[in-house]
Amino acid sequence: MAMLKGPNVFPRSEYLRRLAAVKHEMQRREISALVVVLPANITYLTGYTAKSGYVPQGLIVTLDDEEPIFITRRMDAPAAVHQMFIEGGRVIGYPEDLIANPDKDGWDALLGMLLEAGFGTARIGVEEQTLSIQTLLKFRTKAPAAEIVDFGNTICWIRGIKSDLEIALMREAAVIADAGMLRAKEVIRPGVSEADAAAEIIAQLVRGAGGKQGTDVADFSLCASPRTSTAHISWADDRFRQGSQINIELGGVRHGYTSALMRTFSIGTPSDHMRRLHEGEVAGLEAALAAVKPGATCGDVAAAFNKTLGKFGFKKESRCGYAIGIDWTEATASFKVGDPTVLKPNMTFHMMLGNWVDEDLGYVISETLRVTESGVETFSILPREIFQI
Amino acid sequence: MAMLKGPNVFPRSEYLRRLAAVKHEMQRREISALVVVLPANITYLTGYTAKSGYVPQGLIVTLDDEEPIFITRRMDAPAAVHQMFIEGGRVIGYPEDLIANPDKDGWDALLGMLLEAGFGTARIGVEEQTLSIQTLLKFRTKAPAAEIVDFGNTICWIRGIKSDLEIALMREAAVIADAGMLRAKEVIRPGVSEADAAAEIIAQLVRGAGGKQGTDVADFSLCASPRTSTAHISWADDRFRQGSQINIELGGVRHGYTSALMRTFSIGTPSDHMRRLHEGEVAGLEAALAAVKPGATCGDVAAAFNKTLGKFGFKKESRCGYAIGIDWTEATASFKVGDPTVLKPNMTFHMMLGNWVDEDLGYVISETLRVTESGVETFSILPREIFQI
Repeated sequence: MAMLKGPNVFPRSEYLRRLAAVKHEMQRREISALVVVLPANITYLTGYTAKSGYVPQGLIVTLDDEEPIFITRRMDAPAAVHQMFIEGGRVIGYPEDLIANPDKDGWDALLGMLLEAGFGTARIGVEEQTLSIQTLLKFRTKAPAAEIVDFGNTICWIRGIKSDLEIALMREAAVIADAGMLRAKEVIRPGVSEADAAAEIIAQLVRGAGGKQGTDVADFSLCASPRTSTAHISWADDRFRQGSQINIELGGVRHGYTSALMRTFSIGTPSDHMRRLHEGEVAGLEAALAAVKPGATCGDVAAAFNKTLGKFGFKKESRCGYAIGIDWTEATASFKVGDPTVLKPNMTFHMMLGNWVDEDLGYVISETLRVTESGVETFSILPREIFQI
Repeated sequence: MAMLKGPNVFPRSEYLRRLAAVKHEMQRREISALVVVLPANITYLTGYTAKSGYVPQGLIVTLDDEEPIFITRRMDAPAAVHQMFIEGGRVIGYPEDLIANPDKDGWDALLGMLLEAGFGTARIGVEEQTLSIQTLLKFRTKAPAAEIVDFGNTICWIRGIKSDLEIALMREAAVIADAGMLRAKEVIRPGVSEADAAAEIIAQLVRGAGGKQGTDVADFSLCASPRTSTAHISWADDRFRQGSQINIELGGVRHGYTSALMRTFSIGTPSDHMRRLHEGEVAGLEAALAAVKPGATCGDVAAAFNKTLGKFGFKKESRCGYAIGIDWTEATASFKVGDPTVLKPNMTFHMMLGNWVDEDLGYVISETLRVTESGVETFSILPREIFQI
């Protein structure tokens, strides 16, 4: 595969450091080969962000090899050679005939390679939750003398503490997220359709800001009156009106790294009820941010938020945030009462204070943040207010 | 849940028809309750398109009830009430405490409901490939007297033949896809950054066309020189130049239904090699379209394409297309040599002739099509040419 190699997002030493952390865990569990499947984990270990994960593909990390091997369908191999930091010859494209083939698929190719490389009697780690039961059975049938063990979401936990290089990308992504939200402030007007506003905001997120382009489109939600109690809908076939409220959740993306942001907009003066909720949420946000420091637990942060919000007569049922990084949510730590995760410098979270109180009252505000040596850094520079149009 | 119900995308009779087809299969397999998890299948059976599938949720279809029940996290219940055709009381929000909870999750809530409803000793269908092995084990442990059987991708196959109402949405989506591609023709110029072009094209796809707004952002690929041998990358941090070639894959979306389209752009005259490949591909496309008719197999269509392309001295290794509908690809039939699927009226396909010949020569063209009573209808009205800038 002689495909041109593109510029790497990170220096080689950064990828080797990440791989070393994974290999350390493999060693501890006596795993000699690991099959990484979660796309965000493949991005983390190689720089690859192409959207090929809807068919079988896996990154094989071994204790003996400095660089991993990537097995993907032949169509996607050139993009992998182009984007991954590894030597081009370590990207193996399996035959296209294995796509939509009822008898054999890409997992057969990957398993064939593992066996050929001498791992037929080894302890092989897999991310069980990323594989169907049919695929897991294939692993057990095709490599009957191997011991297949679950690596769980170990790599997600390793991803939890960012390097300064990753933080730099997340700051760039946050500048883009801010620009998207400011664009929303410009285009949300009575009579404008939700889709037209979304088009302008998303275009800004793609175009980028601060001299850096967006590198992908993250999930985007625009929940406007009378749908402000909903979350996670794209937008509706409707127009803004005088009195409309609009809740937006968006993300800036830099090479997979996402910084998320939520703000509430009001065309005209928000109701008293909404203003009281906003005051409580912002006070809660500030209390929660004050609780973020190395040594505190995620549960402590949630408790600080809940206590303050409660003083205003409100309650938030859902967690107050979650770890964030590549492809948005990391399925590890949450700002949730009782979460024992101890905060460490360069952990990053989306402190997500969306609160859908009842069918008439939903409100959103959030900050993407980094735990610092002594406290917290929020990435957005936008004011914590209801943006009134 | 008293959330306002939105306008349904389809009339009630359409959803009941779809459910009847699913129930017919359940009856045949003596399954009394079915847990549907694949988001596109939930969209199909209810109209729901919100992005909540990253946490546990399931639609329970039973033989005895006309309408299904939807179990989702409480945060997402209002959007489900708003978008789904079912009665609001049949949307059950499980407690937010089950999110990021190491001991119990949304599957426990769903299983609890199934047991309470008397299905503890029933035959329960699941889409095995959508569940982790941990979740499957939970089904077996929590409902030990039930028989858990795999429903496979039965619903995807049912989705394969569209109603005229679905075809109407796919035609609308195709008008949007065409508008996106025409926007690309306007904005691709030497010196323009790939991200700025992508921003304009994606904005068009969101804004919509033909009086219909886009309802979501589908995957989008822009692979320009020197990356024309890659597929599935968003875009790069680069600018177009005189002589650049640009391969674009995009989709218009209407309420989940996607019409996809690929075209190749050239700034300046394309090379002779590229022109020969283009001629072969268009001839192959026309031969393949001529082979599409009820009674022919998917394999016949691929054979017609391959034979014609071969006359021009080229070969395409990957399949020539696949079933398309909600959320783009349906994992069922493919235009692939040997695929025995027999074509029937209102099946829809993305005839995808992307051909990545070598590191210097990648070319894309495609059509989203419908099998008619006597032949084929292609949705796009764009010419089958290399768009020269």
